[in-house]
Amino acid sequence: MSSEQIMVKMIFDRWHSLIKNFDTVLDSLTDEQLEKEISPNKNRGIYLLGHLIVVHDDMLSLLGFGDKLFSQINSDFKAPDKSVAIIPSAQELRVYWKKVNEVLNKNFDSLQPAEWFQKHTAVSAEDFSKEPLRNKLNIIITRTSHLSYHLGQFVLLKA
Amino acid sequence: MSSEQIMVKMIFDRWHSLIKNFDTVLDSLTDEQLEKEISPNKNRGIYLLGHLIVVHDDMLSLLGFGDKLFSQINSDFKAPDKSVAIIPSAQELRVYWKKVNEVLNKNFDSLQPAEWFQKHTAVSAEDFSKEPLRNKLNIIITRTSHLSYHLGQFVLLKA
Repeated sequence: MSSEQIMVKMIFDRWHSLIKNFDTVLDSLTDEQLEKEISPNKNRGIYLLGHLIVVHDDMLSLLGFGDKLFSQINSDFKAPDKSVAIIPSAQELRVYWKKVNEVLNKNFDSLQPAEWFQKHTAVSAEDFSKEPLRNKLNIIITRTSHLSYHLGQFVLLKA
Repeated sequence: MSSEQIMVKMIFDRWHSLIKNFDTVLDSLTDEQLEKEISPNKNRGIYLLGHLIVVHDDMLSLLGFGDKLFSQINSDFKAPDKSVAIIPSAQELRVYWKKVNEVLNKNFDSLQPAEWFQKHTAVSAEDFSKEPLRNKLNIIITRTSHLSYHLGQFVLLKA
């Protein structure tokens, strides 16, 4: 394995492992449990799930894979939880969550290791030449950390 | 920058940023708040803090930087929370937390980028030749994910 292959594999091993852990927790929760707050007066499970869908959906355009799949739910999860009514049902959000990660995965497989060190779409070529850390792999690194943060909260919904 | 340099910097940017976020939350909490549970019947703040100290302390030997600094508190945080009395005070744990991260940091700076792709101490040379992902950088990657998971919980202690 080249060092680039090793780097990319280390990052994706974490990503896939956290998605798998999240799915296990999600599948173990009822829709009623998803409506509960992770801790008194904090975000509800359903809000966290929607927030993660929106953030993962954004990755499609950031990584140059295409348009958002679920732009209609963006506004539901931009405002703080409980400030606006959440329109999609828990059942719908479960479907969206599987879908966005499935589409991401398919696209991940289409890139060669070296391509992960190329710029993402939110940075100009000029800025990227000065800031080489703003590459595609860094999107995966930061979103893995983000997923882990919310997984730690999501797991609290379990009895 | 070489791709190894870029990779190492991306990983450490995440690590340092999460340590900084954790410190900001910790500094904002009183000792009384640390005694609270992150959610009803879940772990207490003081337990999570001790657990993170133990895990970070383990990194010293895993990365070949030396012995544990605080082996005396290991057993307090191996058993589930509230199953044994926690001996160190919140004040002591705050000191240990700063110390272990300070010592880690000093040692991190002593390694060149290529050295992060060498084996950690818990894998044999033979196994490492077949499993090159078991390198030092992967210890940082997995512990960053671990820290993020618990930061998501720790932040719930804030009013």
